[in-house]
Amino acid sequence: MNASIITIGNEILTGKTVNTNLSFIARILTFSGYNVIREITVRDDIEAISNAFIEASSYGDLIVSCGGLGPTFDDMTLSGFAKAFNLKLVENKDVIDMIVKKTGKLTPERKKMGIIPENAKPLKNDAGIAPGILIEISGKMYIVLPGVPGEVESIMNGVINELKIPGMHYIDRTFEIKDIKESLLAPVISDMMRSYGDLIYIKSHPKLTPDGKPWVELEISASGRDENQLNNLIDNVIKIIKDRISQNGY
Amino acid sequence: MNASIITIGNEILTGKTVNTNLSFIARILTFSGYNVIREITVRDDIEAISNAFIEASSYGDLIVSCGGLGPTFDDMTLSGFAKAFNLKLVENKDVIDMIVKKTGKLTPERKKMGIIPENAKPLKNDAGIAPGILIEISGKMYIVLPGVPGEVESIMNGVINELKIPGMHYIDRTFEIKDIKESLLAPVISDMMRSYGDLIYIKSHPKLTPDGKPWVELEISASGRDENQLNNLIDNVIKIIKDRISQNGY
Repeated sequence: MNASIITIGNEILTGKTVNTNLSFIARILTFSGYNVIREITVRDDIEAISNAFIEASSYGDLIVSCGGLGPTFDDMTLSGFAKAFNLKLVENKDVIDMIVKKTGKLTPERKKMGIIPENAKPLKNDAGIAPGILIEISGKMYIVLPGVPGEVESIMNGVINELKIPGMHYIDRTFEIKDIKESLLAPVISDMMRSYGDLIYIKSHPKLTPDGKPWVELEISASGRDENQLNNLIDNVIKIIKDRISQNGY
Repeated sequence: MNASIITIGNEILTGKTVNTNLSFIARILTFSGYNVIREITVRDDIEAISNAFIEASSYGDLIVSCGGLGPTFDDMTLSGFAKAFNLKLVENKDVIDMIVKKTGKLTPERKKMGIIPENAKPLKNDAGIAPGILIEISGKMYIVLPGVPGEVESIMNGVINELKIPGMHYIDRTFEIKDIKESLLAPVISDMMRSYGDLIYIKSHPKLTPDGKPWVELEISASGRDENQLNNLIDNVIKIIKDRISQNGY
């Protein structure tokens, strides 16, 4: 099953904020059996947000967005979402009650966080006020999250058991190869991908030591239903690569 | 002028790597006078890369990509780029010479890094081997960068003077407001945006102290030609906000 991520927020596109939400969400989806195929970041702009959701609906069975659910003028994700899929936004009594309980007083800005798409399920936010939103539209699942990292983590950790693809495993192992340029290692990796590419994926990350010597971090990943088989396969591939390198066979 | 960024690499979409290239590139473009309006991350897949470039060409006068220029089987950005715009990839003698000089020996994998789009200008990479690429197509400028952060920084720092929009300034100031929930501050920000929204942008970032007390980081940004005017405007807005808060006027 494919998944796609949307990030909403000017602060990412001005470079003020590093998008750690993306790596958190991508990691948890990957380890839950999804293949994350695309991410898009847009500004706090209703038109851009609406288009991002429409586009993303072609890129995955599950679409997760983060950002733009708070109380300020530029938190407009739900308006953009409703516009994209022609949904009504309605006051959700349970959410409003929760907001009053958490904040003591219902201001117009706080009430806004309780106006959510019709038929959406609010998702518990233990780290903040605005709840996440879960909704199915035309057979695709959408999860709409706020942008504060602690809130993203709290809500995702709470909902991930519902989303997990049963029986799917993702394994990801990295190891270092010292004193080698990536370009010298490339033919070894190509050979391994020719032999095992249907089952595993090898990614090389070229690095430099502080004094400028090249080394490579190799990452081998595989996903499937039999965890033992995946582990054995990865062990085997790592062994072959290490043997070839120790024999200078590149 | 608008700009758009493309990130290429499975490691971002599996969540293994945090996309620090995006914040670096976004920051340097923003401070060079561009409005970065969109970023997209795709997998190491020719079709996905090609589509990302075609899409991005509608979102900016300048498009900057990073990732996928190295020597391994899954470095396929230039093939995807050439496919998108129907370009020929040709051996560039200067780049090949540079690769030989840097590595000592031309292997097929290294040679691949010297095969670049016809009419593209190679950009010096002081931190690695694969050069960046600068090319103009149908009035839009494309910069294609490798994915290793040190190489992205080296190449961007080398080319940014060519890209800078003359006379444009971007100013961005943040300050903290203690002991306040974002939802309580929201009406103040809305008022300020109603008065000054054509000239500045205010973004609030809700935070928690380690012991769970809410505070807000306010970020005020403005861009334009007169740096003094921008600074005065931001000073003025910060003063009004602080006055209102000290008078509990929210």
